[in-house]
Amino acid sequence: MDFNAAVGRLAGLDYQGLHQEDFLLTWDKSEDELRAVLAVADALRLLRENNRSCRIFDSGLAISLFRDNSTRTRFSFASACNLLGLEVQDFDEGSSQVAHGETVRETATMISFMADVIGIRDDMFIGKGHTYMTEFADHLTESHEAGVLEQRPTLVSLQSDIDHPTQSMADLLHLVHEFGGLENLRGKKLAMTWAYSPSYGKPLSVPQGMIGLMTRFGMDVVLAHPPGYDLMVGPREVAARAAAASGGSFIVTNSMAEAFAGADVVCAKSWAPFAAMEERAELHSAGDTAAIRALERWLLAQNADFRDWTTTDELMGTTKDGSARYLHPLPADITGVSCAAGEVDAAVFDRYRVPLYKQAGNKPYAIAAMIFLQKVADPMATLQQLWSSAGPRWQQ
Amino acid sequence: MDFNAAVGRLAGLDYQGLHQEDFLLTWDKSEDELRAVLAVADALRLLRENNRSCRIFDSGLAISLFRDNSTRTRFSFASACNLLGLEVQDFDEGSSQVAHGETVRETATMISFMADVIGIRDDMFIGKGHTYMTEFADHLTESHEAGVLEQRPTLVSLQSDIDHPTQSMADLLHLVHEFGGLENLRGKKLAMTWAYSPSYGKPLSVPQGMIGLMTRFGMDVVLAHPPGYDLMVGPREVAARAAAASGGSFIVTNSMAEAFAGADVVCAKSWAPFAAMEERAELHSAGDTAAIRALERWLLAQNADFRDWTTTDELMGTTKDGSARYLHPLPADITGVSCAAGEVDAAVFDRYRVPLYKQAGNKPYAIAAMIFLQKVADPMATLQQLWSSAGPRWQQ
Amino acid sequence: MDFNAAVGRLAGLDYQGLHQEDFLLTWDKSEDELRAVLAVADALRLLRENNRSCRIFDSGLAISLFRDNSTRTRFSFASACNLLGLEVQDFDEGSSQVAHGETVRETATMISFMADVIGIRDDMFIGKGHTYMTEFADHLTESHEAGVLEQRPTLVSLQSDIDHPTQSMADLLHLVHEFGGLENLRGKKLAMTWAYSPSYGKPLSVPQGMIGLMTRFGMDVVLAHPPGYDLMVGPREVAARAAAASGGSFIVTNSMAEAFAGADVVCAKSWAPFAAMEERAELHSAGDTAAIRALERWLLAQNADFRDWTTTDELMGTTKDGSARYLHPLPADITGVSCAAGEVDAAVFDRYRVPLYKQAGNKPYAIAAMIFLQKVADPMATLQQLWSSAGPRWQQ
Repeated sequence: MDFNAAVGRLAGLDYQGLHQEDFLLTWDKSEDELRAVLAVADALRLLRENNRSCRIFDSGLAISLFRDNSTRTRFSFASACNLLGLEVQDFDEGSSQVAHGETVRETATMISFMADVIGIRDDMFIGKGHTYMTEFADHLTESHEAGVLEQRPTLVSLQSDIDHPTQSMADLLHLVHEFGGLENLRGKKLAMTWAYSPSYGKPLSVPQGMIGLMTRFGMDVVLAHPPGYDLMVGPREVAARAAAASGGSFIVTNSMAEAFAGADVVCAKSWAPFAAMEERAELHSAGDTAAIRALERWLLAQNADFRDWTTTDELMGTTKDGSARYLHPLPADITGVSCAAGEVDAAVFDRYRVPLYKQAGNKPYAIAAMIFLQKVADPMATLQQLWSSAGPRWQQ
Repeated sequence: MDFNAAVGRLAGLDYQGLHQEDFLLTWDKSEDELRAVLAVADALRLLRENNRSCRIFDSGLAISLFRDNSTRTRFSFASACNLLGLEVQDFDEGSSQVAHGETVRETATMISFMADVIGIRDDMFIGKGHTYMTEFADHLTESHEAGVLEQRPTLVSLQSDIDHPTQSMADLLHLVHEFGGLENLRGKKLAMTWAYSPSYGKPLSVPQGMIGLMTRFGMDVVLAHPPGYDLMVGPREVAARAAAASGGSFIVTNSMAEAFAGADVVCAKSWAPFAAMEERAELHSAGDTAAIRALERWLLAQNADFRDWTTTDELMGTTKDGSARYLHPLPADITGVSCAAGEVDAAVFDRYRVPLYKQAGNKPYAIAAMIFLQKVADPMATLQQLWSSAGPRWQQ
Repeated sequence: MDFNAAVGRLAGLDYQGLHQEDFLLTWDKSEDELRAVLAVADALRLLRENNRSCRIFDSGLAISLFRDNSTRTRFSFASACNLLGLEVQDFDEGSSQVAHGETVRETATMISFMADVIGIRDDMFIGKGHTYMTEFADHLTESHEAGVLEQRPTLVSLQSDIDHPTQSMADLLHLVHEFGGLENLRGKKLAMTWAYSPSYGKPLSVPQGMIGLMTRFGMDVVLAHPPGYDLMVGPREVAARAAAASGGSFIVTNSMAEAFAGADVVCAKSWAPFAAMEERAELHSAGDTAAIRALERWLLAQNADFRDWTTTDELMGTTKDGSARYLHPLPADITGVSCAAGEVDAAVFDRYRVPLYKQAGNKPYAIAAMIFLQKVADPMATLQQLWSSAGPRWQQ
């Protein structure tokens, strides 16, 4: 890929809406803005791979606030921030210090006096994560407007209950690379399907993020899951509208086979039923541990009814030319490897390991591009300047 | 504020005593030295707000050693260090590895081979925290003099059992900004009063730090608390002497109302009775958990006798023109918000939220100024050079 | 020490084998390569002590993966990385996420997309640690060759079950400084002996690393331990071969007195019997907690039979001129200080404290030198350039 060509893709796009704004939901962003993220991600990769420093910060802090475990996203965020010159400082909430109203406002302000960027993961409870992030964002704006914060740090969602934008944008980057351009996604069939896992409560935000983003560029997106494993209504409506607007399509089915048939791209992974997760969030708020355990047992038992929702070689054979792209956000539950029965057969996973790892390798660049576009007023000029004038990232 | 004016305030001050020295107690520092910290804090703020890099370190480590929880101070220390170009490395002691004699010496040396600055919080046990810091400091000096450490890192107390200098200096910065100059504090009445909280063992170092510092510049400081809630003798004597020397005053009363009456500034927060904390430290050393729990129950019960020591709108109305500045180191126990009955009514807190947050926003600069003056031989020249020649902190 | 002399020691050495390779075992490295590490360590120290920046990275990540506690090595790694311009990101595995096959490969890749260096400590279980590191390394190579990783990060072992190369190289640096040159170690007698400790399971990798390295340069190495406290066979064979090749000697005895008699250097510390540690690793794999506890009781009881294996003034008096160099990787179990009876008498430890601390102070430079030689294609040129052209590390 040529650097000038990558930067040139920014020309004519209207992406000023990203500047000094948060990145919480891909569907709050325009097509041009999403294209800009893709272009900047490629440009930053070329800078780094050609040993140019991408530092736009001489000093500065990025705060990470993880309310759920993470390896991939944590390291991707740390990598992206380091690439741009920011030092990551983890905020470890401990107990329930930052639970409600008053203290969210205070915490948001107290950790932000010298913060440039804040990354938040809060994906555990339906109805909570995205709400927390928007509250957090509002308090930052208030504190900035009141003169408490010299500048307003920007937020990047590292996964909420609704969307997982750094994952879906990394996946989109991957597909663009695989198919040789965003335009080539038009008319491609993508199957986003549920798959069996022996764990019961995986977030809905991955499939929601996928259907909400991949419908934007003319793909034919099929969402498949067993009865009862519905996603939240909002993202489904988003996907339907986006498909209509982009000339793609969005359908929901209860058949994994139907989704896979002739698909160009498949992504099969477990998630929890929305209704059960909503109930769980309420039980959690009520502190009813016994009821939560009962619900979890019930969910695991229900999951087991759909153990045949798994990615097999046979099923892969029904995809386009028997060779669809296989996506997974990782880690996958691999039958016979990480569990007795899971989302995918080892034979399939092994065959796709290299592209899966490449898929994951886009996330640091996707995050760095979001931050870059949030912070830099003239991204084209700054990228060109980094290419022509920045020192080496390291002295080889 | 003008940069040259801020730096100009250093002219004529004698602050070489700060260079390569620790900052543990404000009352070990001269008036000139404290003025220098205020001036440098303002200068660094102007550098940053005008997008000048404040890095005086190209690489280097700052070690943080927190023996008690912290959000505000931890992030302030991290922010200050990052601002100056230092990377923070947290030292997590685990269990009781660094308890006594031999191992304090060893730990102090082992983490310091490439450390420029070490920040320590040790505020939990009366008679321990400051002692630990001075032992730590002595061992650093020994190791430096023996040629083990190439350079001696400097210490910043991030709160001991005796003083909380980064808090009190941030508060002083705030008052100087609020009243338009250090000279304008002369003759102002400051009420440092105890307030009720449903928790029993808050450190004494905040009020001690306050009375020890605010008496230095001619303020009339009134310390108020219920009978039995005395502070340590040392800081009270410090305050009395400082008031006498500065032309201010220092009185102690058992009446919150008396303290608030006509006050220009009030700070009302909970702390534990000194005698009880001393007993607790002994019980802790003896490992007598049952007795500690009994003591805590007794303290909570005693606290409850003084539930009327709380900051109400009515009480605020008795201050100078009914509109005293209200300080709190945060987080506050807010009645009806974070607890049923606490240090301050929600109506008061809400009204003062913005200045309270601004107060807190001074801490990163107060810490950065302390470090700057510890490390830089010619602060005026270096600040001028950063203003005129340093690159931007970030490429906007 | 003169900088040009330090760098000049690289001339004529063949150390290209270190470039872009891992550093797991000193005995996988040639004599020239080890000499290069010593020379670069000295050069980096001179750069730093003369306030030259040693940054060869403008940005970049170093990942630390500690599967056992660490203070000294953790801070040494952090210091070395910071010195070279890398930011350390700790990888905290949690539970057993990274246990076997599939997931080691995935983890290795997922944390490495932007990693330059990875430091691993895995010393707890015989037969596991080094194996884990080589698996990790193989997966990095695979992912690099498959185009998943743009570059292959290099590994530094921060202690395995077999070797502790950053410790032994730091110790070698210390001896070279103490005796005025590597050549002066020839013919010197080094006693590596077991010593009593009230804890039962200290790693074997320290003594193994010592005998495997110190035999390389013509020293007469005596390994002493009570019957049953054998080291692993491999490192003993390594030591025997190395002694033969270097013109030194390697003998094993069951007498601490024999080892100390006339020794120029002594290092007396506790370790666990190999056979018992092997059994323990198997019990651990089998999850047999009761049997592990029984084994530990038995080990402590057996240790107690050898309480007279301790470093006393009397024993030190039997060394060469009664004044051998005394080494210990720290922390030591000091009789009457950190335990009732331990590895060394307080009087001996106190007398040797300063050189012991100096010994420890070499570790950051040893690690930095390893990384430097792994990453930089022309170390002599880059060092010269840092000396003549790099900016100051900090603005004094």
